[in-house]
Amino acid sequence: MNDLLSKIIDRNKCLTSKGKVASYIPALKRADPKQLGVCVADIEGNIFAAGDYGQKFTLQSISKTISLMLAIMDNGSDKVFSKVGMEPTGDAFNSIIKLETISPSKPLNPMINAGAIAVASLIKGKDPEEKFNRLLVLLRKICQNDKLSINKEVYLSEKETGNRNRALAYFMKDVGIINGDVEDVLDVYFKQCSIEVDCIDIAKIGLFLAKNGVVLETSERIVEEKVAKTIKSFMVTCGMYNASGEFAINVGIPAKSGVGGGIMAAVPLRMGIGVFSPALDDKGNSIAGYGLLEDLSKELDLSFF
Amino acid sequence: MNDLLSKIIDRNKCLTSKGKVASYIPALKRADPKQLGVCVADIEGNIFAAGDYGQKFTLQSISKTISLMLAIMDNGSDKVFSKVGMEPTGDAFNSIIKLETISPSKPLNPMINAGAIAVASLIKGKDPEEKFNRLLVLLRKICQNDKLSINKEVYLSEKETGNRNRALAYFMKDVGIINGDVEDVLDVYFKQCSIEVDCIDIAKIGLFLAKNGVVLETSERIVEEKVAKTIKSFMVTCGMYNASGEFAINVGIPAKSGVGGGIMAAVPLRMGIGVFSPALDDKGNSIAGYGLLEDLSKELDLSFF
Amino acid sequence: MNDLLSKIIDRNKCLTSKGKVASYIPALKRADPKQLGVCVADIEGNIFAAGDYGQKFTLQSISKTISLMLAIMDNGSDKVFSKVGMEPTGDAFNSIIKLETISPSKPLNPMINAGAIAVASLIKGKDPEEKFNRLLVLLRKICQNDKLSINKEVYLSEKETGNRNRALAYFMKDVGIINGDVEDVLDVYFKQCSIEVDCIDIAKIGLFLAKNGVVLETSERIVEEKVAKTIKSFMVTCGMYNASGEFAINVGIPAKSGVGGGIMAAVPLRMGIGVFSPALDDKGNSIAGYGLLEDLSKELDLSFF
Amino acid sequence: MNDLLSKIIDRNKCLTSKGKVASYIPALKRADPKQLGVCVADIEGNIFAAGDYGQKFTLQSISKTISLMLAIMDNGSDKVFSKVGMEPTGDAFNSIIKLETISPSKPLNPMINAGAIAVASLIKGKDPEEKFNRLLVLLRKICQNDKLSINKEVYLSEKETGNRNRALAYFMKDVGIINGDVEDVLDVYFKQCSIEVDCIDIAKIGLFLAKNGVVLETSERIVEEKVAKTIKSFMVTCGMYNASGEFAINVGIPAKSGVGGGIMAAVPLRMGIGVFSPALDDKGNSIAGYGLLEDLSKELDLSFF
Repeated sequence: MNDLLSKIIDRNKCLTSKGKVASYIPALKRADPKQLGVCVADIEGNIFAAGDYGQKFTLQSISKTISLMLAIMDNGSDKVFSKVGMEPTGDAFNSIIKLETISPSKPLNPMINAGAIAVASLIKGKDPEEKFNRLLVLLRKICQNDKLSINKEVYLSEKETGNRNRALAYFMKDVGIINGDVEDVLDVYFKQCSIEVDCIDIAKIGLFLAKNGVVLETSERIVEEKVAKTIKSFMVTCGMYNASGEFAINVGIPAKSGVGGGIMAAVPLRMGIGVFSPALDDKGNSIAGYGLLEDLSKELDLSFF
Repeated sequence: MNDLLSKIIDRNKCLTSKGKVASYIPALKRADPKQLGVCVADIEGNIFAAGDYGQKFTLQSISKTISLMLAIMDNGSDKVFSKVGMEPTGDAFNSIIKLETISPSKPLNPMINAGAIAVASLIKGKDPEEKFNRLLVLLRKICQNDKLSINKEVYLSEKETGNRNRALAYFMKDVGIINGDVEDVLDVYFKQCSIEVDCIDIAKIGLFLAKNGVVLETSERIVEEKVAKTIKSFMVTCGMYNASGEFAINVGIPAKSGVGGGIMAAVPLRMGIGVFSPALDDKGNSIAGYGLLEDLSKELDLSFF
Repeated sequence: MNDLLSKIIDRNKCLTSKGKVASYIPALKRADPKQLGVCVADIEGNIFAAGDYGQKFTLQSISKTISLMLAIMDNGSDKVFSKVGMEPTGDAFNSIIKLETISPSKPLNPMINAGAIAVASLIKGKDPEEKFNRLLVLLRKICQNDKLSINKEVYLSEKETGNRNRALAYFMKDVGIINGDVEDVLDVYFKQCSIEVDCIDIAKIGLFLAKNGVVLETSERIVEEKVAKTIKSFMVTCGMYNASGEFAINVGIPAKSGVGGGIMAAVPLRMGIGVFSPALDDKGNSIAGYGLLEDLSKELDLSFF
Repeated sequence: MNDLLSKIIDRNKCLTSKGKVASYIPALKRADPKQLGVCVADIEGNIFAAGDYGQKFTLQSISKTISLMLAIMDNGSDKVFSKVGMEPTGDAFNSIIKLETISPSKPLNPMINAGAIAVASLIKGKDPEEKFNRLLVLLRKICQNDKLSINKEVYLSEKETGNRNRALAYFMKDVGIINGDVEDVLDVYFKQCSIEVDCIDIAKIGLFLAKNGVVLETSERIVEEKVAKTIKSFMVTCGMYNASGEFAINVGIPAKSGVGGGIMAAVPLRMGIGVFSPALDDKGNSIAGYGLLEDLSKELDLSFF
């Protein structure tokens, strides 16, 4: 397996030159576009890894899966999905249009920014710190990694430049999707996006979902099977931004990407996969990470059909 | 299994009173809203059925899966997906907006009307008759039913009232997505929607997709595995109109519904399912058919995750 | 005055090289982009002209003012404005979006294509020929020119290539804005766009509107004052495509342009102006014609404020 | 004239029962819907008034004309119109859609909220207080009323509830239309909306515009004629929200309304008119104020055509 991973890394490394690292904040812009790493954590407890799998990067949109889980644990599915829809969208991840044109106003799904911000507002806690800490504690348990914490520079930059997200949040506040202080809600959201991980960590998230809500190492059930399946459904229909449909066809694995260059994938009942390569394609997905997963899916026949 | 199907039919029959039959043409309006039928065709060759499984109805949007297969067989994936996208959409199935706002103009996917019309324009043949006949021959082979043919009354009504589809088609003609005569293209499309089937027929389509492109009875491979998986991917991301995301979460089976009241579902490597009940919910899906599939998925653990 | 017109023509001639003639049909594409002509027909009966004022061109969108007048004469304002709105729009002249997103569906105003097609459908007559002839007779009376007729090549090209307009028309047929045969409605519309005129003719239309509905030469009142003012209001708020607001600020004269290169302007109680120059700016207005009217407005203090 | 005004007030008073006072903040909700007042300030220096002309109300959107004037005085037209467009729109006054779909992103005109907020950001001054004070000083000079000041309750409510405006502002900050601190910009905007006036005050604004930028009492020219005409053009094309086109047809006077119930109108070279009646129609315009102006326009032949 380690050989296969190395081979696939070699094969996809060339793709890194065709993408571009995210440039909206300095910390992301500094990433080395040539890096590519992968980790496979399978259901027997094996960990395979190759390339730059130890490189740290920020979760960004991958965190939307965790916050959704926590919000459902805190509020139940019905409450959460009264505030955010379940449907994929052909609009951009940061689009505000559907909020205005759909009646009643509601973000289409929890994987676009508007939806994820609405979800963050539902996490319980007496203040933004407590809310974020509960999310961090949950993530540490899933990843079995107590050292996980935020990259402060990224967090501060996100907070400073996140005006499109502010626009989405104030719009939702206006139409009653979000209650409470907007900056407090955004603070949780910016922090969750700024959690620093490596390929092993996100492979563990994938493994946890592959096992439908149970942590392999501890056998602890953290969320109901139904919730884990819900998260995987969203990964299929809207996990790869506006390439989700194409990715389902070409790769066929539930996956969630982030602009930090990570892709977290869950092969039901088989394995979790973590990929990192910061050069992005024009849809915002790691370009070499996408290619690597496509090859891996073919080699190991991972497609869900 | 027959007992299970009967039981689930009984349990979901009450839902029929909460939906409404399609009313835009007289032939659909006349359907009996209380009917509910199901057929399971499994990979061992067993056929189980219950309720009104022998009732005839028209394929409508379910035909989009067949025309897409044929168009890919005729042109290859690259050509087809240069004219139509792969992404789900939160817009209505007959919306024209994205055609105007996305650049270059291209229907988002082959399951919305615009995309399906573009797909129909790619089927090879010297005239609309030949094009449609090729599709009918393909379908008869898949269903192993030589008697399949169109319901002429439905076809003529679709043709007469199909002005929204004409608008979509002329728009696509204008921007170069469609070549050739618009009425000829629409003729193929209206005919494919008007093919009359029963639950057994569509269960056979599902079975054929479950077997990744092979007809069980004849062991004939009709399309490549890759194509069959592509069709199933579209069924997952956009097969149930604007309830596709929700259906993936609640049921977790690739499925395609039609306003005639049918739902065709394919459980990979296990079975095809055909459901019929003409009363529709507000998204345009058979309301009791949805409920029946949800129950069946739980009882038999059919969810793909 | 003739000197002033010549001077202003000289001053604006250079602008012609910055625009582009319409190229969607061959007959328009052949126009000489360097031409520029103007005619002023004042309320005392004087006719002043300079440059290529005798050059023939087709009315195109300028005809929307005439068809609106006739539709109101035939049906009354209430009926007409139950089918088409009164509001300007920031969308493109051939956009279909508002038809889909506004409820109830209704073209925003009679100067965009959708609105003008809806208006054409309201003109009385037993068939398209009679409807168009009634419009032509009306126009001949207004222009005092019995020789006005259509340019057959332009008409046939418009009919052949007018698929975007067909899309608009079928959409409106679908939602009930248009009754009757769509191709019949479009036939009237394509013909009205193809009427061949020169600067003197359209200056006479402007004069007729400046005199609030009375033909100067015959003193015949053809429409009520209220209708003439309505037409001028639409010229102000939406006569110059998506440069209407800017034109009101910079020029301040009710005006309607066409992609044939003509601009028809009406200075209330003072004069009509006809301008022709086929090179268009990126909004679809004659680029030198716009400049000429801006200069003329300043020189003669024609702004309505 | 006073008799005429009284007569027209009596005739339109009944309309007040068909509208509704703005209810998004308590101070507006408390307004007496039955009130109706009018003031005419003509170019000879006469002041005529009738009904509740002395009732105080807040300027709201009428202030957009003043801030636009000041921004142009401070920056020149070119700078201002590089940040905000000149075109009317069929979208709602608080819509965010066009900001997202038009490229480059720019509010369509200065009369919609997004445009007015962008304009407010261009007013010079070292802090929000100084910026607002400069606007207040300008307005006092135009109205010849040193007592004008803000209604603090309204201002605080606007500030508290103005989340839709915050969404617009943060969106514009994100795309570079607005520089500087968003809350500072909004502070100026909320204050300008909260200036308290009566019918005489806004009639004076109208008179000042009718005289193309000169204060009648002092003969002081405050803005260039071109700027005053620009303001009046915007009042014609987009002064009455989404009834601007209809108002131009039915009334034919440049006018700007506010949700406080005021309408400020300017009859070029003749008079300014101030109307107040807080019950609004479904477009957001004073329903009796609209009727009153329609009658007045007919009686005195004030239409600009």
